[in-house]
Amino acid sequence: MIIDKYNKRAKKINSLLCVGLDTDFNKIPKKFLKKKFPQFEFNKWIIKETHEYAAAYKPNSAFYEARGDKGIQELKMTMDYLIKNHPDIFTILDAKRGDIGNTNNGYITSAFDWLGFDAITLHPYLGGESLAPFLNRKDNGCIIMCRNSNPGAGEFQDLKIVEVADVGRLGSRRPTSAGKPLWQIVAEKVSKDWNKNKNCMLVVGATYPKEMKKIRSLVGDMTFLVPGIGAQGGDLKETLKAGLNSKGLGLIINSSRGIIFSNNPKIEAQKLRDEIRKYK
Amino acid sequence: MIIDKYNKRAKKINSLLCVGLDTDFNKIPKKFLKKKFPQFEFNKWIIKETHEYAAAYKPNSAFYEARGDKGIQELKMTMDYLIKNHPDIFTILDAKRGDIGNTNNGYITSAFDWLGFDAITLHPYLGGESLAPFLNRKDNGCIIMCRNSNPGAGEFQDLKIVEVADVGRLGSRRPTSAGKPLWQIVAEKVSKDWNKNKNCMLVVGATYPKEMKKIRSLVGDMTFLVPGIGAQGGDLKETLKAGLNSKGLGLIINSSRGIIFSNNPKIEAQKLRDEIRKYK
Repeated sequence: MIIDKYNKRAKKINSLLCVGLDTDFNKIPKKFLKKKFPQFEFNKWIIKETHEYAAAYKPNSAFYEARGDKGIQELKMTMDYLIKNHPDIFTILDAKRGDIGNTNNGYITSAFDWLGFDAITLHPYLGGESLAPFLNRKDNGCIIMCRNSNPGAGEFQDLKIVEVADVGRLGSRRPTSAGKPLWQIVAEKVSKDWNKNKNCMLVVGATYPKEMKKIRSLVGDMTFLVPGIGAQGGDLKETLKAGLNSKGLGLIINSSRGIIFSNNPKIEAQKLRDEIRKYK
Repeated sequence: MIIDKYNKRAKKINSLLCVGLDTDFNKIPKKFLKKKFPQFEFNKWIIKETHEYAAAYKPNSAFYEARGDKGIQELKMTMDYLIKNHPDIFTILDAKRGDIGNTNNGYITSAFDWLGFDAITLHPYLGGESLAPFLNRKDNGCIIMCRNSNPGAGEFQDLKIVEVADVGRLGSRRPTSAGKPLWQIVAEKVSKDWNKNKNCMLVVGATYPKEMKKIRSLVGDMTFLVPGIGAQGGDLKETLKAGLNSKGLGLIINSSRGIIFSNNPKIEAQKLRDEIRKYK
């Protein structure tokens, strides 16, 4: 199982930290801008500073696509560097993809075969049938967005779903309960129907610990990618309390800006790693 | 309004046809593979053959990303060619993006500022707050996925939503009706809340004409991007009957494989254009 790679690394260095390589070209320190491959050089520096604390790295594709083919090339250089120097660190392409059926093969070729990522983030809106090409990749992780960390995530994710079973039992179209929220339906579908290859994970934001606790109770030991710590205001202690699985793992705790654009990325990564250890 | 560009072109050539540049590298005729920029050269040929019938072109990003930075470069060359030679044809990047807040700026820079597309397709799952950077781009179209054309699109999109108003009226947590499907809620939100800059459109698959009719009744003259004609089995006559708006426009009818990988793209494009005219 692909998640074994993450778990092995997490245990080896006793860390659940994922460093988000959200390498915004407009925020890179000036000294890197003079170089031929600024995003790559910055990433290489960040990796050198933080790798001993990092169980995973997660570049967000948007920051590289912003620079067109140049950015994509530097993302590829970053991955080549990571795979060569730190092959045991788990890698996630935060790309939030999700097209219909075979069209997804283009994204699969790009993310897994060409760039060499272990896992990718995906939108659930088009259903499991559409994502089959991803789900069929046994050796790659499919991290499905379930409960996102942004303030407006609830606009659709919190909508309550009418329970069809209730409608049937009454023999009428009147449901009996207020229903589960959409994020819960997504969590249940992924856990029960989509995870045949044991390669599914969920995005569950640190900004919603109550929901995280509920999702943990529904999906067993499935791993969560957790954005929202730091800049977005998520609480680390609450997150670990709500989200750790029965093995003391099950969380990939991401921090991006809070580490990579701090005055001292090494110190910040170590600090967050230490806090994770403390509350575990 | 950005949709004026599409409407003007559609009226000028009396066509609602969008040619999908799903330029799968593995399906390109051999003679193009010998060239230095095979995807670009193929696209150039397709555009030469089909432009007189095309109100819009829609490359799907997945087919270009599959070739890494090379593919992205050829997508850029395709757009440069289109903008130079056919500046009045509407262009859509079918990228199905949707990240949180400012992270979307990377995709905006790439799709609108660098590649020069008029519009982009977007996932609604993270809510309107997350898509604000797109929605705030007055001069670019935001084409939100509402009812997709793939067989499994209903897994979440058909889920019935509990109506909160009903719950309140009863003073209990028991709702009174079976609720609206999620795709309807998305259509209503986009139409009522997200469309302040009059730059929103919806993806509504040709494979679901009943749903299309309902959505048309809800959103006034808003334009639909319609995949699913041809290879996916959508019926053109039904689509036009269900989807045309009060101005005899409101539809961007896409065909990809059925045109670009046919024996004669020019003839197939003309045929579909003619059928659209016939049923209008």
